[in-house]
Amino acid sequence: MSTTTAQSTGADEAELLRLVEEWRNNLEARNLDRLMAGYAEDIVLFDVKPPYKITGKAAYRANWEACLPFFPTQFKSEHRDLNLTVSGELAFLHGLHRMLPIDEPDHPAGRSWVRVTACFQKINGEWKAVHEHVSFPMDCTTGLVSPIVEPI
Amino acid sequence: MSTTTAQSTGADEAELLRLVEEWRNNLEARNLDRLMAGYAEDIVLFDVKPPYKITGKAAYRANWEACLPFFPTQFKSEHRDLNLTVSGELAFLHGLHRMLPIDEPDHPAGRSWVRVTACFQKINGEWKAVHEHVSFPMDCTTGLVSPIVEPI
Repeated sequence: MSTTTAQSTGADEAELLRLVEEWRNNLEARNLDRLMAGYAEDIVLFDVKPPYKITGKAAYRANWEACLPFFPTQFKSEHRDLNLTVSGELAFLHGLHRMLPIDEPDHPAGRSWVRVTACFQKINGEWKAVHEHVSFPMDCTTGLVSPIVEPI
Repeated sequence: MSTTTAQSTGADEAELLRLVEEWRNNLEARNLDRLMAGYAEDIVLFDVKPPYKITGKAAYRANWEACLPFFPTQFKSEHRDLNLTVSGELAFLHGLHRMLPIDEPDHPAGRSWVRVTACFQKINGEWKAVHEHVSFPMDCTTGLVSPIVEPI
């Protein structure tokens, strides 16, 4: 975890790291109410799959609900190579995330990390995610996804 | 173009929009010296293709150089649905970009928009891009890229 703090208090940085940890816990617990509490009303998501853009909290929640059946029965939510930048009322992070399946070694979720960029804004004194971009790289010659198996 | 300004001066917003326009002009002109001037030394790129992460200005420039032969001979660099958020020393934007080929209707570059997230930091009084994330969405059933032909 590398953290760049420009003009911010350490409190903001600590709060954002706590929110990211809480996000992982809520995802593992499939607790969509608590998961969605961290997002701004006008969140814009670029997800790994179509549509290329999902706008607003209700649509984002529906997207999570549609994905839940494809998650492993039990999994560990993991971040790696997270880099957080905080200053004043804005923050952003980038890194890798995966859902590591427990007791299902062949589950598709275990095949690749995904790249994540998340942008945050302090709204009424609370940090909320206003934008997320999640993706795999693509092999230009085949048009196929290129899995991220072993992070550098 | 929608712009959210929290605690910033309009000057920062105008400067960032000018830099984005300049970026498009430099890309069309294949002027890598001027293009790279807008990036921080420790820029982290999540590109559309492997490797999943490129770190540092020299590696980013080499990546552009390797891509130039695959660009259309002449093209228009276009953004769409750009959303910029500026506050204090940080800023971020998300939207779509494409290189629209001129006189080469079947060029692969014309097949899809790409999704772009860019994060900026004011360093020694100058706005620099410190992170870019560029991607296509992927069809989960086939593992193939899902082109963005008609933006919503």
